[in-house]
Amino acid sequence: MRRVAIGQAGGPTAVLNTSLIGFLDALDGEVFGVLNGFQGLVDGDMIFIDENRRKQISQFNYVPGACLGAGRYQMDYDSRINALKRLHEKRIDTLVFIGGNGTMTALHQLHQTASDIGYDLSVIGIPKTVDNDLAETDHAPGFASAARYVALSTRDISKDLEAMRNFEQVRIIETMGRNAGWLAAASGLLKKNDTDGPHKIYIPEKIVSAETFLKDIKKVVGELGFATVVVSEGLSVHKNSTVEKATVNGRKVLGGISNHLAELVYEELGLTARGELLGMNQRSSQLAISEQDQAEAYDVGKKAGNLVEEECSNVMVSLGRSGGESYEFRTNTVPIEKVSAGGEQRLPRKYIDDPHLYYEWLKPLVGSDLKPFPPMIKRGAIDENKPIRS
Amino acid sequence: MRRVAIGQAGGPTAVLNTSLIGFLDALDGEVFGVLNGFQGLVDGDMIFIDENRRKQISQFNYVPGACLGAGRYQMDYDSRINALKRLHEKRIDTLVFIGGNGTMTALHQLHQTASDIGYDLSVIGIPKTVDNDLAETDHAPGFASAARYVALSTRDISKDLEAMRNFEQVRIIETMGRNAGWLAAASGLLKKNDTDGPHKIYIPEKIVSAETFLKDIKKVVGELGFATVVVSEGLSVHKNSTVEKATVNGRKVLGGISNHLAELVYEELGLTARGELLGMNQRSSQLAISEQDQAEAYDVGKKAGNLVEEECSNVMVSLGRSGGESYEFRTNTVPIEKVSAGGEQRLPRKYIDDPHLYYEWLKPLVGSDLKPFPPMIKRGAIDENKPIRS
Repeated sequence: MRRVAIGQAGGPTAVLNTSLIGFLDALDGEVFGVLNGFQGLVDGDMIFIDENRRKQISQFNYVPGACLGAGRYQMDYDSRINALKRLHEKRIDTLVFIGGNGTMTALHQLHQTASDIGYDLSVIGIPKTVDNDLAETDHAPGFASAARYVALSTRDISKDLEAMRNFEQVRIIETMGRNAGWLAAASGLLKKNDTDGPHKIYIPEKIVSAETFLKDIKKVVGELGFATVVVSEGLSVHKNSTVEKATVNGRKVLGGISNHLAELVYEELGLTARGELLGMNQRSSQLAISEQDQAEAYDVGKKAGNLVEEECSNVMVSLGRSGGESYEFRTNTVPIEKVSAGGEQRLPRKYIDDPHLYYEWLKPLVGSDLKPFPPMIKRGAIDENKPIRS
Repeated sequence: MRRVAIGQAGGPTAVLNTSLIGFLDALDGEVFGVLNGFQGLVDGDMIFIDENRRKQISQFNYVPGACLGAGRYQMDYDSRINALKRLHEKRIDTLVFIGGNGTMTALHQLHQTASDIGYDLSVIGIPKTVDNDLAETDHAPGFASAARYVALSTRDISKDLEAMRNFEQVRIIETMGRNAGWLAAASGLLKKNDTDGPHKIYIPEKIVSAETFLKDIKKVVGELGFATVVVSEGLSVHKNSTVEKATVNGRKVLGGISNHLAELVYEELGLTARGELLGMNQRSSQLAISEQDQAEAYDVGKKAGNLVEEECSNVMVSLGRSGGESYEFRTNTVPIEKVSAGGEQRLPRKYIDDPHLYYEWLKPLVGSDLKPFPPMIKRGAIDENKPIRS
């Protein structure tokens, strides 16, 4: 029987706990839970997952966050040695983490350090992401629910703005995505009519100048009377020199470019503008959980459980899709060092050039139950009188 | 047959269009739609609602925003005279608006000015609000869906923070509510365990000093390792002199106190803190629509349609609740000048002193389907070893 430690790392998603549940359901071994991500691993903060705790964890289906605790923690050589000591004390033979890019790199390094010191430790990665920048997989759990939240919020907030356009003209919606525009681009999924938002999307893959940005906004407001704009948090806007990315509290917590841009719009165009940071709800809104995302999160966990039983090592579970007419996903494996070496996956050129191709790819993940809104009631041919401005 | 003009005014809600649909369903008269709120009224921007448009409008059930357009517009005597001219040209005998405090005052003044110039115009108000500050009604449609969004977001965002507390300690969630704390207080509806957010709520009804605020946060973080705090946008925090409320783009668009407070927490306590403005999703998220709110929005509209048929005037439809065990609402009427004179209703003292009394009042409006989250998996008595900090 395998002795396994499993942890959750990085920023949580709405379906991160579901992957843990899938893992536990598939595995008939002795399992320790690592509390609070890699920091807990280094500190030896592990608990045995007995039957009672399995039951507790099963209540976290459809609960956002990370029921074991997660977090961001940078490991160096010394902390890796400490972590390996803690694992060795508990006679762990397999270490599993649910995480993103940083997590896969950390697992790969832990595996290498373990080999160097003669500790036969298997490592397995379970993918999770909100911004979909993970390499060597079609996509990863967590992203689809976040994309659903972004698409719905943009549709709703734009419809609200359209009704208020005599009072307020521009809303700049800011999504997660430090280096990749997957989430920001998802905002256009439910756009059907020209009046529907978003009217413009700006992503980190394409640097924009302040002049172009302002010209775009002016044009949209000229045509429609209002403009709903979506930007990634990691967008760079150049005005003479680079506009620096926002820092919060002196730390490089991203988020805030929308407020900078709203100020710019007001100063340069005299339009009332508001920044709308979609914030932590993007990764934690229970309401926006995609059923497909939920199912895939469970299955990547389950697959990892099977891989432990099969004594695999040094792999991440990946997701692929069938080439057929209707969407079907399958779990697969990929060498973990390839994921680590792959770095952050940006939105491919083909999707930037043809957003409809992207939306076709995205729709089955986010859910086909979502509908665009009807256009507003407008003056038409049957109305004899024009409004009189007195 | 009555000749009626109906418009939507102020900030939209998620169920504002439903009241319009209820109104049209109940009325067998000739109806004109006023586009873009009171500005459209003054400009004579009205369209005849024929069968085709009734069908179009019926598609806006469960669609946020205002399908006729709304907006904020301050009317003076001259604009009232212009509005009355436009209505008289169309031989309108009844003017109906769906709106909040400002709308009811405007209707009352229009009625008075019409009387002064010998124009026999009936006025009827249909209530809507997100921040529940409307007088002479138990509550008003739009609030319950917004409260649902706030309660769910606080539950979800706090659970996410709890998992990340080693990285980030404080989130300050900002709700709508310029003068009243109804929405901010609703954030506590799904709190069950001590670890559940919100850990502190600050509302405009109770001015707080920066010193007390910081002491509160320090205490919660000391006990739990993190703190989820909810503040109303209209909160005043005193530090030596008053901290001024945030202005956006030089205009007094409220929203931003959370970021000021997050900076204060970082500077004074050295904790990583983030402001989370819940933003326009509060009033426009389709996902968060409360079924009860939806039903009541329809019924206040329907009631107004009946009142037009009965040739009533100078009243607003109000909502009352039965005194019995289970929640039942009934529509009623109240003189519109009483609503206008009543001003903005703040959260009553009894609800501030005993939040559970408030939650009992709130639960049937927001929906009893909502559940608190289970507490996180923690080290317990069965775990022999404590974590080792090396």
